[in-house]
Amino acid sequence: MDNLQIGRHISGQFNEDLERVINNVMHMGGLVEKQVADALAAVDQRDVTLAKQVLSKDYQVNAYEVSIDDECTRIIAKRQPAAGDLRLVMAIVKTITDLERIGDEAEKIARVALENFSTSQQYLLVNLDNLGRRVLEFLQLSLDAFTRMDVDAAIKIHQMDDKINREYEALIRQLMTYMMEDPRSIPQVMTVIWSARALERIGDRCQNICEHIIYFVKGKVVRHTTAEEMKNL
Amino acid sequence: MDNLQIGRHISGQFNEDLERVINNVMHMGGLVEKQVADALAAVDQRDVTLAKQVLSKDYQVNAYEVSIDDECTRIIAKRQPAAGDLRLVMAIVKTITDLERIGDEAEKIARVALENFSTSQQYLLVNLDNLGRRVLEFLQLSLDAFTRMDVDAAIKIHQMDDKINREYEALIRQLMTYMMEDPRSIPQVMTVIWSARALERIGDRCQNICEHIIYFVKGKVVRHTTAEEMKNL
Repeated sequence: MDNLQIGRHISGQFNEDLERVINNVMHMGGLVEKQVADALAAVDQRDVTLAKQVLSKDYQVNAYEVSIDDECTRIIAKRQPAAGDLRLVMAIVKTITDLERIGDEAEKIARVALENFSTSQQYLLVNLDNLGRRVLEFLQLSLDAFTRMDVDAAIKIHQMDDKINREYEALIRQLMTYMMEDPRSIPQVMTVIWSARALERIGDRCQNICEHIIYFVKGKVVRHTTAEEMKNL
Repeated sequence: MDNLQIGRHISGQFNEDLERVINNVMHMGGLVEKQVADALAAVDQRDVTLAKQVLSKDYQVNAYEVSIDDECTRIIAKRQPAAGDLRLVMAIVKTITDLERIGDEAEKIARVALENFSTSQQYLLVNLDNLGRRVLEFLQLSLDAFTRMDVDAAIKIHQMDDKINREYEALIRQLMTYMMEDPRSIPQVMTVIWSARALERIGDRCQNICEHIIYFVKGKVVRHTTAEEMKNL
């Protein structure tokens, strides 16, 4: 990822410190994106080795969060930023919390690949994969918007979450029907339900990341505003 | 709540600004605690009016988050805090995010009171209430520790989350058995499962609040440390 565009937003004296932090956020974002993609691939291909790899890599995501958080606090103490510079640091602090939690959700998804599904139950995983692809795309677009601090993209993709929520709810209804039709499948279906839930949570976190971008660029908190108010930005 | 004890931790020049912010955090904490207690009472007593009251009050929780977050950023810009003062502001910023999400979970729990349960299904709610009481206690203790910035209490109650997770898992297993025995009850049981999940999430958020206290007082990030390492603090 290139962060030339974010560079335009920050004032001279911060360049060196912030460039390092932003680079680390990009690496963390790339790692988290890979964790989600690998978790989905592990479930789709019933790949136990890949699933275990996702589980074993979560500590790297956590380590990024701790070190970037620490760097941000040191930058605030040392550089005493104001206005946009401070908003950027605060946006980063919040974004890495969201990224770390996305990493946790990826771990939950990977665990599904370790469960036993009979051949006749594999169909349960198909719709999960569809939701997964959409959420992964949302994550990629959010990270891309963050790299460029592209507020227009952030406002636009922020709305993807509604679509994901609708797809998630349809999937849950479908899975509940399966359970009613074949109560013996309940444990397996519940596993799929938890993964669907994890994907829905990742969507929420991506929406948060878009909100952090909007906060930084526009100086406006949009967490609790309506879609209509968002458009007026 | 009294915040005399937190006052001991902060340096002179911050007193006025920070006292105001801390007071607001206390009010926000009190409101969130009441939202969770009311949501649980609404479910327990099938009180639709109380449930609707919880739903209608969530905007107050959100408003607190936005205004406290804004105040914290202004304090950093204006006062340029360092060391412990800065850690306190950062701990507040993170705590209010957790409080706001606890408010969202309370909303989810309140929605259960709006669902239709037959008399024979009321038993489903009994164990939810038990988990709810334990989580509410965890929340109260966490907020109390935050008010006093009591790191010993924070380290001790941090471990309550393990117990809550075990109780939650036992409840989920029990609810899955109900579904298998009576598949027609699946929609109602799923509603209870989502509330149990919301309670479990509140427990996680309380654990976060304890971690913010430890971070502020000890200057140490304990998010990803083991129980053993926690004890060595």
